[in-house]
Amino acid sequence: MNRAIQLAKKGRFTTSPNPNVGCVIVDASGSIVGEGYHQKAGTPHAEVHALHQAGERAIGATAFVTLEPCSHYGRTPPCAQALIDAGVRHVVCAMEDPNPAVSGRGFDMLRKAGITVEVGVLKAQAEAINRGFLTRMRHKRPFVTLKMASSLDGKTALNNGLSQWITGAEARQDVQAHRAASCAILSGSGTVMADNPSLNVRAPEFNHERFDLEESEIRQPARVVLDGRGQMTPELNVWSQSARSYCINSRFNALLPKHVTQWQAPMQSGKIDLTQVCAYLAMQEFNDVWVEAGAKLAGALVKEKLVDELILYQAPKLMGDSSLGLLAFPELTSMHDVIDLQIKDIRQVGKDIKITASLV
Amino acid sequence: MNRAIQLAKKGRFTTSPNPNVGCVIVDASGSIVGEGYHQKAGTPHAEVHALHQAGERAIGATAFVTLEPCSHYGRTPPCAQALIDAGVRHVVCAMEDPNPAVSGRGFDMLRKAGITVEVGVLKAQAEAINRGFLTRMRHKRPFVTLKMASSLDGKTALNNGLSQWITGAEARQDVQAHRAASCAILSGSGTVMADNPSLNVRAPEFNHERFDLEESEIRQPARVVLDGRGQMTPELNVWSQSARSYCINSRFNALLPKHVTQWQAPMQSGKIDLTQVCAYLAMQEFNDVWVEAGAKLAGALVKEKLVDELILYQAPKLMGDSSLGLLAFPELTSMHDVIDLQIKDIRQVGKDIKITASLV
Repeated sequence: MNRAIQLAKKGRFTTSPNPNVGCVIVDASGSIVGEGYHQKAGTPHAEVHALHQAGERAIGATAFVTLEPCSHYGRTPPCAQALIDAGVRHVVCAMEDPNPAVSGRGFDMLRKAGITVEVGVLKAQAEAINRGFLTRMRHKRPFVTLKMASSLDGKTALNNGLSQWITGAEARQDVQAHRAASCAILSGSGTVMADNPSLNVRAPEFNHERFDLEESEIRQPARVVLDGRGQMTPELNVWSQSARSYCINSRFNALLPKHVTQWQAPMQSGKIDLTQVCAYLAMQEFNDVWVEAGAKLAGALVKEKLVDELILYQAPKLMGDSSLGLLAFPELTSMHDVIDLQIKDIRQVGKDIKITASLV
Repeated sequence: MNRAIQLAKKGRFTTSPNPNVGCVIVDASGSIVGEGYHQKAGTPHAEVHALHQAGERAIGATAFVTLEPCSHYGRTPPCAQALIDAGVRHVVCAMEDPNPAVSGRGFDMLRKAGITVEVGVLKAQAEAINRGFLTRMRHKRPFVTLKMASSLDGKTALNNGLSQWITGAEARQDVQAHRAASCAILSGSGTVMADNPSLNVRAPEFNHERFDLEESEIRQPARVVLDGRGQMTPELNVWSQSARSYCINSRFNALLPKHVTQWQAPMQSGKIDLTQVCAYLAMQEFNDVWVEAGAKLAGALVKEKLVDELILYQAPKLMGDSSLGLLAFPELTSMHDVIDLQIKDIRQVGKDIKITASLV
């Protein structure tokens, strides 16, 4: 199953909106006779690749799969049926597929055909590789990661707005890999107007070779800009046609290029309702959303408990109190109102520190 | 030499103002025949302990010492002479002693007696264990470590001043060990008036047993309070007689208890001249000074480049922009004015992150 999870991870830059799945087929003597992973939506699933490799050696074999084999005809025929047809005798699965089109029906199909099914092996690891897909299926919202960069004393820019190169080249390269593994990048109109970012994956910085990925396989995440005040103008880099673009606003903006998808979000106290935005992004089949935003949008997402994970790059610098801070939210009056996190990982990336924390 | 450095470290809570020194004596067959380290000023030096253990086996042996053997009569007789008298043939030394009373004279004495002397083995490691002593000898100021604690977004307290328990018990315990290894704790009148801290080593929190230290061996660092505005009152915990206390002010404060040493520091633009304070602390034979101060004093020390090392405990919390920041210093207008650090260590301490960085 460990091997199957390793295989599944190979698809992490390419499978969305589908989950990452790996499959290993082992014959009665314990030898691996087939391996496969899901590479891209619309192409064969992990089980099909592994069965193809195993051929007749699949008869009487055991299949280790990281996610419940599908039972429905989507863009490909059901994998449960393929396992039955191939003569597999045992299926060991890390977890059930929460997708309402499957959710146990794959296991039923296997059991009815006389195949023994074991579920739950390395479940936590299997959940981790599909946290975005699982969050979308279970909670109808994407897994939201907030990326921020600051000095050691929590500052993002000088008071006059200067902020170039707070973090180093290695940290910026690391960000490219996170962007590449995300379905969408979310930002706010303030950041987009101020910096005019492209919010795309730049192949040379991403350094895709280290992930065994061809440049042609890089998927550009969609760009989603929140524009509650209707400020967006048509010439911005974020509307380039290299990727899908969304503008979420309160009324249709006729200035924007036609290829930009606009959505008029419900408003709450004069601001875009961020919970509704997350629901909308899930409906667009975005599993993992990567947020690169200023202090206001970041603060609002944190306060409304819509952030699952914080990735903070801290540069080894001190900028002092008069510089600008990371998160704007209403003044807290009790230590009980402080937002608690749980540190998941700390590491050095170049000269900077990368802190990964979940919001609890 | 590695073993000698390990031995030297055993004295790190007790030797000041003397340096940490370790000594290992190895006979011609390569066997260790004597080991020792310096434990406390006024008691025998490392070499004397090791020679005592070696006895006659020191004849023709090699002594590995982390610092140049002393050549002068201080509170103990010169160690160079003791090595000569014991019949040692070779001395391997990590570094010269920059103390003007020694600085090469120990080596001269050995060589004149026909002993071969090799200097520089594991020099960097030997320098590290005595960085405070070496900074004082070379630059006439102590090695200054600034300790701070904040949330992940660099906040130390809510805007209303509430800040209790930002960091966890393990981080506070870690602070006790740093205090215990310091010669003095420096703080400002604002912090002392607001929190009335004792600024001492609390044995139960320090958990001295993990360092093989008896409770009776714990040395309380001196407390030094900067009081430029002459606000200090006599009842504060920081004046308790459990340790030496200093009040650095601009004019003598008759309210303070007689056992408090007062020093009228030169002023600069209406504030205490911090460079002069550091020189004064070196004259008091403080090798390592640990600073626990508020944003103003911390900011001033950083801006005046008087901090050698920052130790920042970051709690996994977010407190938002309206909360109070780590460092007050004048508004920066260029990214060139940002203070650069170099990360030396990152680790988790309980639920918190401990970042050690040198100021470059």
